[in-house]
Amino acid sequence: MSDIQAYLDAHFAEALDDLKAFCRIPSVSTDPAYAAGIAQAAAFVADRLTRAGFSGVELLATGGHPAVFGEIISDAALPTFLVYGHYDVQPPDPLEKWKTPPFEPSERDGRLYARGVSDDKGPLLIPILVAEAFIKTAGKLPVNLKVLIEGEEESGSPHFEATLQAYSDRLACDLVISADGAMWRPDRPSVTVASRGLVALEITVEGASKDLHSGRHGGSAPNPIAALASLLASLHGEDGRVSVDGFLDGTHPPDPTIVAAIEAANFDTDAYYRDIGSPLPDPIASGRKLLIRQWLEPTLEFNGISGGYQGAGTKTVIPSAASAKITCRLIAGQKPDHVVEVIARHLKSRLPPGFALQVHRHGPGSEAFFVDPKLPALEIAEGVLSELLGQKPLRVAMGATIPIGASFRKHLGREAIFFSFSTSDEDYHAPNEFFRLANFSIGLTAWAMLLDRLGAAHA
Amino acid sequence: MSDIQAYLDAHFAEALDDLKAFCRIPSVSTDPAYAAGIAQAAAFVADRLTRAGFSGVELLATGGHPAVFGEIISDAALPTFLVYGHYDVQPPDPLEKWKTPPFEPSERDGRLYARGVSDDKGPLLIPILVAEAFIKTAGKLPVNLKVLIEGEEESGSPHFEATLQAYSDRLACDLVISADGAMWRPDRPSVTVASRGLVALEITVEGASKDLHSGRHGGSAPNPIAALASLLASLHGEDGRVSVDGFLDGTHPPDPTIVAAIEAANFDTDAYYRDIGSPLPDPIASGRKLLIRQWLEPTLEFNGISGGYQGAGTKTVIPSAASAKITCRLIAGQKPDHVVEVIARHLKSRLPPGFALQVHRHGPGSEAFFVDPKLPALEIAEGVLSELLGQKPLRVAMGATIPIGASFRKHLGREAIFFSFSTSDEDYHAPNEFFRLANFSIGLTAWAMLLDRLGAAHA
Repeated sequence: MSDIQAYLDAHFAEALDDLKAFCRIPSVSTDPAYAAGIAQAAAFVADRLTRAGFSGVELLATGGHPAVFGEIISDAALPTFLVYGHYDVQPPDPLEKWKTPPFEPSERDGRLYARGVSDDKGPLLIPILVAEAFIKTAGKLPVNLKVLIEGEEESGSPHFEATLQAYSDRLACDLVISADGAMWRPDRPSVTVASRGLVALEITVEGASKDLHSGRHGGSAPNPIAALASLLASLHGEDGRVSVDGFLDGTHPPDPTIVAAIEAANFDTDAYYRDIGSPLPDPIASGRKLLIRQWLEPTLEFNGISGGYQGAGTKTVIPSAASAKITCRLIAGQKPDHVVEVIARHLKSRLPPGFALQVHRHGPGSEAFFVDPKLPALEIAEGVLSELLGQKPLRVAMGATIPIGASFRKHLGREAIFFSFSTSDEDYHAPNEFFRLANFSIGLTAWAMLLDRLGAAHA
Repeated sequence: MSDIQAYLDAHFAEALDDLKAFCRIPSVSTDPAYAAGIAQAAAFVADRLTRAGFSGVELLATGGHPAVFGEIISDAALPTFLVYGHYDVQPPDPLEKWKTPPFEPSERDGRLYARGVSDDKGPLLIPILVAEAFIKTAGKLPVNLKVLIEGEEESGSPHFEATLQAYSDRLACDLVISADGAMWRPDRPSVTVASRGLVALEITVEGASKDLHSGRHGGSAPNPIAALASLLASLHGEDGRVSVDGFLDGTHPPDPTIVAAIEAANFDTDAYYRDIGSPLPDPIASGRKLLIRQWLEPTLEFNGISGGYQGAGTKTVIPSAASAKITCRLIAGQKPDHVVEVIARHLKSRLPPGFALQVHRHGPGSEAFFVDPKLPALEIAEGVLSELLGQKPLRVAMGATIPIGASFRKHLGREAIFFSFSTSDEDYHAPNEFFRLANFSIGLTAWAMLLDRLGAAHA
């Protein structure tokens, strides 16, 4: 292992250059305006895999943005691990809030700032660089490694399940290791053993067939913003919880190991609200309750709303339509299809006369995910983190969604563990996303140790 | 009068070219991006006044966009009328809904399509062209005429009252005649004797100090879209009426002459909703009630709403802020200041913990307006319309606001009547605004008759 580490140390500046080049590519998957960036990012990953020594490198057709595949099969008798990541990124807006442009990586105070650097370009580059280090020093890997880097994660992975199904032979493995995900806190190592599911929808309320003058028609014409506001206001109760009939259908009590982690975490609620820059809201009173809400309760969040005039000043118009973007985070037992159905039913039953309602779903969504707590690879990963970071990692849940767990189990019949070196405070869906360069370095060492020990565990 | 009409007929094609040239100028007053169009439109009006034979033509400084002044004083013994209009226009968006570009006038089926052609470029051009016809044929006007064309009407005329006050000597007159306003219906001549007032505000709800990932933070961070939706939903009752304490303070029962007009109008509610392309909403049951709501009840309408991600697809974000644009139409007795105050109080008292609220007012607003029903000039105007259009015009109220009535009374001590040839179905605050060319022609004749008779009435 010491020659591997020496190689990684000697080539760290190049690794950082690779990461910067990757982050210069604007690979936003949700907006067709960035199609060229997506193609360029896929080509970048394929090229980097080839240079690292992977074979069979190919852009897999998915029906949407391509996924990138590559493999290093050292010995058919060794176990095979499939590394997962994604080369697409979140949209960069609001652009005016970035201190340096989102697609011009900027190093400041030991951090690299760029859209996608933490989610997931930095973390996914690490196992590729580590594989290269093994090949250049030892000529082979201690395990067989396959890599699958998709391009639609930030769009809800609409073609991912079909891709797994179509290429299941080529993707066959013993275990999936995800380079996506995030450590919970910068000061406390953690491994993620559960994540909430996700389903996305957009609702549009329509009134008159054209925009109307709010003077002449005010008080008589239907105002879709008013109807939309009432509908949205009906989706939560006074306590902030979702008040849609049937929303919780199929859910179970939470996993006791995660509740134990919550008890152990001693979460500081005041610090949380200070950090996000918000006054302390009622009725969220204690740290324990807040973590339960983040990890173990489902949500219905409004991600965007629009309708009517949005320029400077005023325009005396009654718009013909108004719409809202919604995502729900799901807990174990909630089915995306059913959740969309009960929300649509709730809204339709409350739509005032004089309006039409469209409910449009974005992507298939994904169920919540749980790892088998007795998985040997999970303990090996925890051992590596304990040694490198000096503390036994906490087993935590994630409020965010990593849908791959459920997908890999369904289509490849394999478990997935998360081994990522981004941290959840790195603003990865907000302006000024960054990645800690210390974690880039630790991540390289950790992945080298992980692959080494996974090979040794088999021998 | 026959030589005047002959002149107008002979020069109608040139008049239409003038109108098209005027409409090519993008004079949007609410958006600073159109500053050049505003300057160009003011210069166009000044030049056209000069060419028509007006003297003392000048751009009056207002503190905002300039107002254009000009006068023809034929004889100090004649009565003096001040013509009012505005050269600014509404914003053209949504641009994609225009069949032909908003600032490229297009003639189709006897209509001229362009932003501002009906409100107010066509109607204001008419008296200027008529004055020119008198000067070119008779060498003088039958009355003294002053013209004041402002550039901030669509922004709520923030500097108009101060302008009237500053230039009150130059603007001194016996009566104001507004070329702004609109006939109520294409099939029924009408004169407007009342209009609702207006006040505009914008509210912004702020949560966390930055945009947050809706997975990690969902369920615990404050969502400003949710708070905004609740606040907006609280502003109206089940019957669609404004439910803000104190909103109706100072109001009186409606003018009986307008209620009589409503009874006479026999308004077809079904046709109204068919025309605007909306299903018939409850609880508005009868035509009479609907007209009362349009003319004699105040409103609180949402003109725009925005927050969070508005691009294609989804973005899993909890935005840091969300905002809504609101305008209220006011009836006699409601004070703009007080209305803003009670709305702000209503919203503040309902703001959930964890949020901040900003209430920003756009412009001073204006009170509702009523004309003295016994004004001789009003009867002369009605006579002209009866003769030209074959029906006695209805005295109607307007749901929309023409704030000048109250302003001229306050600063010049004079009444105002409305004599406009646009029609309220001409989509003047919506895409595909148009002006009926037949009304452009009738308007020229009508203004010539009006000025002639106003002169004769004095003699």
